Amino acid sequence: MSVTAPRGFRAAGVAAGIKGGEHRDVAVVVNDGPARSAAAVFTTNRVKAAPVLWSRQVVAGGRVRAVVLNSGGANACTGAPGFQDAHATAERLADALQDSAGEIVVCSTGLIGERLPMPELLAGVDAAAAEAARDGGLNAADAIRTTDTVSKIAFRRGEGFTIGGMAKGAGMLAPSLATMLSVVTTDAVLTSEQCDTLLRAATALTFDRVDADGCTSTNDTVLLMASGASGVAPDEAEFSRLLTEVCQDLCRQLLADAEGASKTIEIEVVGAASTADALTVGRSIARNALFKCAIYGEDPNWGRVLAAVGTTDAAFEPDQLNVAVNGVWICRGGAVGDDRSKVNLKPREVTVTVDLSAGPEAATVWTTDLTVEYVHENSAYST
Amino acid sequence: MSVTAPRGFRAAGVAAGIKGGEHRDVAVVVNDGPARSAAAVFTTNRVKAAPVLWSRQVVAGGRVRAVVLNSGGANACTGAPGFQDAHATAERLADALQDSAGEIVVCSTGLIGERLPMPELLAGVDAAAAEAARDGGLNAADAIRTTDTVSKIAFRRGEGFTIGGMAKGAGMLAPSLATMLSVVTTDAVLTSEQCDTLLRAATALTFDRVDADGCTSTNDTVLLMASGASGVAPDEAEFSRLLTEVCQDLCRQLLADAEGASKTIEIEVVGAASTADALTVGRSIARNALFKCAIYGEDPNWGRVLAAVGTTDAAFEPDQLNVAVNGVWICRGGAVGDDRSKVNLKPREVTVTVDLSAGPEAATVWTTDLTVEYVHENSAYST
Repeated sequence: MSVTAPRGFRAAGVAAGIKGGEHRDVAVVVNDGPARSAAAVFTTNRVKAAPVLWSRQVVAGGRVRAVVLNSGGANACTGAPGFQDAHATAERLADALQDSAGEIVVCSTGLIGERLPMPELLAGVDAAAAEAARDGGLNAADAIRTTDTVSKIAFRRGEGFTIGGMAKGAGMLAPSLATMLSVVTTDAVLTSEQCDTLLRAATALTFDRVDADGCTSTNDTVLLMASGASGVAPDEAEFSRLLTEVCQDLCRQLLADAEGASKTIEIEVVGAASTADALTVGRSIARNALFKCAIYGEDPNWGRVLAAVGTTDAAFEPDQLNVAVNGVWICRGGAVGDDRSKVNLKPREVTVTVDLSAGPEAATVWTTDLTVEYVHENSAYST
Repeated sequence: MSVTAPRGFRAAGVAAGIKGGEHRDVAVVVNDGPARSAAAVFTTNRVKAAPVLWSRQVVAGGRVRAVVLNSGGANACTGAPGFQDAHATAERLADALQDSAGEIVVCSTGLIGERLPMPELLAGVDAAAAEAARDGGLNAADAIRTTDTVSKIAFRRGEGFTIGGMAKGAGMLAPSLATMLSVVTTDAVLTSEQCDTLLRAATALTFDRVDADGCTSTNDTVLLMASGASGVAPDEAEFSRLLTEVCQDLCRQLLADAEGASKTIEIEVVGAASTADALTVGRSIARNALFKCAIYGEDPNWGRVLAAVGTTDAAFEPDQLNVAVNGVWICRGGAVGDDRSKVNLKPREVTVTVDLSAGPEAATVWTTDLTVEYVHENSAYST
């Protein structure tokens, strides 16, 4: 299912030899229409990979025929030659589809600072274009994995339309997406303006609130393609809700498979003066190394939560802060609260609730713990 | 030597039973004058420990007779009773010295969220006051250790005056000081206004530029006390230079002993449009978990450096960034530079140089790598 669950889409994932061995490393997702409305959000990192520089020009036109994705190399920090490689990749898929390269999005993921092996990649584009089929969604999701241990896919059905999605990303998850690639498809009838508005609203509540390790990558892309093949113009509120669910579903899968993580941590900030305050506080906690180590050690160390809150400029009084871990209010009024021995931190899912006692607003941010395995995996990645 | 190297100071470190066993855990540093000029800088964390709340009132008066420090408990997030404990501690030392509690600074370090064992602490204050002597500097430096494996002391001699210092802190080192306590003494003749100006200038270039794990603590304090016992009013430029050297020396010792670190990393940012830009970029790199893991793995992964630079708002063009690791320019013009195999990352001292190609300004920030041992130590600290 995945990206080929909605009508009008074909996909494939092939082994082109970029990663070496038999691993799939090139994917295509082709929109056969009748419409080709599209929108995308990209990394906020100012050091943007060549495929991001290419693809944001494409998406600015509001029409996308297909996307080609490769793992095994990020094509980031590769200068003008790297941009030419991204362009050539788009041209190759355009040739195979007898279409315009100006409507081909390119995504890459893998190591930064190395040129892609272009002969292998271009041969892979040909093979993927030839294989692209209605049942190719799972192979495409497989081909974009890097250190992901499993493929991430999701879909939802609405009144007469379907939304499907795939994603990859296991480290460098941070606000503004970070080493995360995702393609979401729908057969609903939407304009590119609708795609843009709906995608931004959905990612603001989902991908933008995931922060595994505070690192923002050079390649993040979330692409929404609408084929119109269902003939159904959806109710916008329903579509928005289901699109957000698909994005949320993919985010949960990313967190569950985050590099070396042993806990998925939901940080709810309530009682905030504004949503912005709630997000600032949530992200500060999500990025606090000592707090993340404590959760790894199954230690409900609320002092580290308060220390993280205290570094923000959000509205609060230190002696009115309350903190619950998995429902036990172990900090009340900025000091010791209920018995911390009542907190059960054995399950993988951990919820930390911070009450700022400063207003009616709330927001939730998701992160993972900081583990020995994370350090192992990320100290050995490129060697 | 340490804080008792300058004339006019006595110190002691005793085992009061706060940490349990035979470990020293209460220290005093007493200024016998003739002058008692002083200044201090404190954590910027808005969640401030009780002793910080107490001591900044004391220091606002510009006169400090003595400081009492304890390890084994931070007295942070302890509410009004915790503040009363800090006050009572100051009163006890004031009684012993037959002086005013309003001129007694209090510092605490250890776990957040627990009340101090006051009977043990107050008995320790009595013992330390009774033992305080000209040769007590080393015992005092020993008594303030938490997870520090060694004492940190430094001193410099100027034209007719001396500066001595001690510090503790092994985690939560971040801009704005973070779980760091330091007492610096001098027998120079200085006003409290001079103390304040000189101390702020020195810490801005040293303690404020150390960022081990991005975490800012609730207790950080750097206190400067001037006895005037030398009778020498120093040349301000000379004093400033030597005070900065003492602070720098203490910072290097803190980094060398940072929890679980295997590398001390000096991040030089050059070619910046402003000092603020250089510091922003340096701190972003210092806080990037993936970069810190790479250095632990002895992997000169310049792509992660660029990804960290790209998250800042500093002036630069991505294709004009240059990065050297230990002197080898492995990234030039935002892309691959010299052969990365020429980089030797075996020594503990690592220098990363980032050239923003945007102006004449520069700044240096210090950090450590992110290691398996760091995660181990910080996941088990309170249990």
